[in-house]
Amino acid sequence: MAVREILVIGIGPGDPDQITVAAVAALNRVDVFFVVDKGAAKSGLLDVRDEILRRHVRDQDRFRVVEIADPPRERRPDGADAYTGVVADWHAARADRFADAIAGELAEDGVGAFLVWGDPALYDSTLRVIDRILAGGRVEFGYSVIAGVTSVHALTAAHRIPLNRIGEPIHVTPARRIADGLPDGLDSAVVMLDQGFTAAALDPDLEVFWGAYLSTPDEVLIAGRLGDVAAEITRRRAELREQHGWIMDTYLLRRPTP
Amino acid sequence: MAVREILVIGIGPGDPDQITVAAVAALNRVDVFFVVDKGAAKSGLLDVRDEILRRHVRDQDRFRVVEIADPPRERRPDGADAYTGVVADWHAARADRFADAIAGELAEDGVGAFLVWGDPALYDSTLRVIDRILAGGRVEFGYSVIAGVTSVHALTAAHRIPLNRIGEPIHVTPARRIADGLPDGLDSAVVMLDQGFTAAALDPDLEVFWGAYLSTPDEVLIAGRLGDVAAEITRRRAELREQHGWIMDTYLLRRPTP
Repeated sequence: MAVREILVIGIGPGDPDQITVAAVAALNRVDVFFVVDKGAAKSGLLDVRDEILRRHVRDQDRFRVVEIADPPRERRPDGADAYTGVVADWHAARADRFADAIAGELAEDGVGAFLVWGDPALYDSTLRVIDRILAGGRVEFGYSVIAGVTSVHALTAAHRIPLNRIGEPIHVTPARRIADGLPDGLDSAVVMLDQGFTAAALDPDLEVFWGAYLSTPDEVLIAGRLGDVAAEITRRRAELREQHGWIMDTYLLRRPTP
Repeated sequence: MAVREILVIGIGPGDPDQITVAAVAALNRVDVFFVVDKGAAKSGLLDVRDEILRRHVRDQDRFRVVEIADPPRERRPDGADAYTGVVADWHAARADRFADAIAGELAEDGVGAFLVWGDPALYDSTLRVIDRILAGGRVEFGYSVIAGVTSVHALTAAHRIPLNRIGEPIHVTPARRIADGLPDGLDSAVVMLDQGFTAAALDPDLEVFWGAYLSTPDEVLIAGRLGDVAAEITRRRAELREQHGWIMDTYLLRRPTP
């Protein structure tokens, strides 16, 4: 019996060649790429995605790209939407739209794909939405996940630093969680999903390794003692966001070496 | 002026094709691969490394492979060596041997490389050792880091799960740190560097997603409620270790969904 197949493919943090050979092989099996465009603001990233398909898919006539309009999402300025039913409602709305697109656009023996920046396991909703689609029962398919390089590793590679101190944990956290400082018992943390530069208000003796537009030609890196570089990061971040119309950045915070 | 160049290349968790296109390009620039063999016990991994070079380097006559014997490392059965001078002494001894190999085997305009499983930022000593070599001043070189896919993402891809709950942190920790349970305030953690299956002693209501030999043909996955699968994981782990002569495994622990 024919069954639709969906591939959830990690395409790396921004360099079209920072994608695995296995992911390239997966791209070449795809009949329909389902893409969710979040508006022209992130056009820099959309260009990279197009370039990935252009550069790595041998037969450019093999595949179609189907755009899925993202459902509206109520965003609360304090970030509290992540902790309420807002996200769940939005996932449900996404699941409906994804299910319609898969049922309507993908042949019953076809291979569809969702491309995910970085790796599909890291702060991305695609896998949760797929679980919802399958639970909903409107369309059936098998699926698999192809791992990718994350922006966390693009950050550490660019700064040429380890993520962990010897024998210590690695902690990756939404910015909201470090508003009061590094959590007790941790000597470092990677901060993601920051709407500004939350760390500017923290202990000036922390070390910071910051990066924006990682793995792209626009990459900007700043590192140093927080007290020395926080103002510079805050200023550059605002300038870059203005200049590009969008920004993606992340940073590692670390207590000073004892 | 000619200057030696060293590339620290993440080669992924075990599938020769789970390496980035950028890393493949880097492999093709290398004159000398410096490899540290940790004994025949991990011969499965050494075979994969050889296959990576065979499959991805176009000119097989271009490069040489230079083996560096690893300095002896005193291991204490309780894992306390990671928290004492033992690791620092061992890094210093490694730095001496690496420096000798680079100075002796790499031409002054040559490109050398260290291949690192997964990603060079994650529980690997190569970057620390390179810092020591450069601080020691015995040999000069420029260096860069090429990011890779880690076993953490191989684990989540194989189980098709996200690393984080919505809005929650991601925590990766050596097994020693979860001996008393998941740290307070965390609802999940990835456990690495476990000499056994430490989680067997924890709250039976935790969910576990375990994987061994990830991304290789020998991959084994077990998932479920800890109380239901801990004994099976402990038994399979011992059997597999006996069968292969070595084991590499990791797992995600997660509090049950509220």
